[in-house]
Amino acid sequence: MKLPKVVDDLTISFEKLPGIGRRTAQRLAFYLLRVPQRDLDSFSSSLVDLKRKTKMCRICHNLSEEDECLVCSDDMRDESLVCVVESFQDVLALEKSGSYKGRYHVLHGSLSPLNGIGPEELYIDTLLTRVSTGKIREIVLATNTSLEGEATALYINDRLEERKRDNPDLKNLVITRIGRGLPTGVELEYADDETLVQAMGTRKGI
Amino acid sequence: MKLPKVVDDLTISFEKLPGIGRRTAQRLAFYLLRVPQRDLDSFSSSLVDLKRKTKMCRICHNLSEEDECLVCSDDMRDESLVCVVESFQDVLALEKSGSYKGRYHVLHGSLSPLNGIGPEELYIDTLLTRVSTGKIREIVLATNTSLEGEATALYINDRLEERKRDNPDLKNLVITRIGRGLPTGVELEYADDETLVQAMGTRKGI
Repeated sequence: MKLPKVVDDLTISFEKLPGIGRRTAQRLAFYLLRVPQRDLDSFSSSLVDLKRKTKMCRICHNLSEEDECLVCSDDMRDESLVCVVESFQDVLALEKSGSYKGRYHVLHGSLSPLNGIGPEELYIDTLLTRVSTGKIREIVLATNTSLEGEATALYINDRLEERKRDNPDLKNLVITRIGRGLPTGVELEYADDETLVQAMGTRKGI
Repeated sequence: MKLPKVVDDLTISFEKLPGIGRRTAQRLAFYLLRVPQRDLDSFSSSLVDLKRKTKMCRICHNLSEEDECLVCSDDMRDESLVCVVESFQDVLALEKSGSYKGRYHVLHGSLSPLNGIGPEELYIDTLLTRVSTGKIREIVLATNTSLEGEATALYINDRLEERKRDNPDLKNLVITRIGRGLPTGVELEYADDETLVQAMGTRKGI
């Protein structure tokens, strides 16, 4: 049976989302046939305005409503400490943890030569420019601990070390990698080898 | 960190959908930040038009673009055979199977006293009205085989039998229940008891 075109169109839009297959997409479209029109209106206007009402912070490339994000425009945050992450979501996770009071730098991805993502596709140059002002005391490389994330951290570390050699103003710049070890609440028995090796290496007095 | 309001709003809209939790909703909102504006525009317009551009068929209550759905307006379909189902999706499934050439009647739910759904909440009266014209030869009750679906089938059967007693024109009306047994491609070992009891009862010569 041919469905009304608008139902088919909506199903197709849902189907394009990650993790949503044909059947789920259709189920969602049918579900929405039963919700109040005002819910559809607000869903619809959020979608159409999503990119119009958001920007990328001109300093750290974090998600923002203004030219500068809430972190970069907050004078209480330590400007000399910059945490380099892959995505907006990583900023959110760190902010939620409440463990960090510095600034951020969002790369918008990680190096992945097989997918055609080289250093030029990431916001690495702007990080080097930020560093060259000499105001940054420490860079925390907090990319993922995946293969791509590690490669990205190593690459950025190399580039920063080059800058330190060339620019005497940067000789005190410290480059760190986010701490590795066992996550909270896991059973040691199920941890992978690499995590255990790292956890042994980062052991400390109680 | 406070996210841009439009991102929060979109996350909330996604979160209201069945089977989508907070984290998935946020992931979808972030994902959409990276899709072309034209995709957002078409997603948005399908949503806002969803209910405006669809109707319920005035005869069978199936989903339709016109006053009468494609099945009811198709003269090639057997008007004397009506299959009673719970939802649009059931119509779709039967149409996809290609096994059925009659008309439908969509109840829009099943009896569920605990959820406050009684006979008045379903399109049962309009089914009785359709039957009273005397043009229908057979009603196939194809509600789900769940507790609610079975109760709904029994209830409708009782109401139809009442009508048959009261109206001599309907004495030839046949009321059937969709066939029960083992679904295709399953291992007998894993079938539940009730299915096996039904399957034994509906056995036939090869």
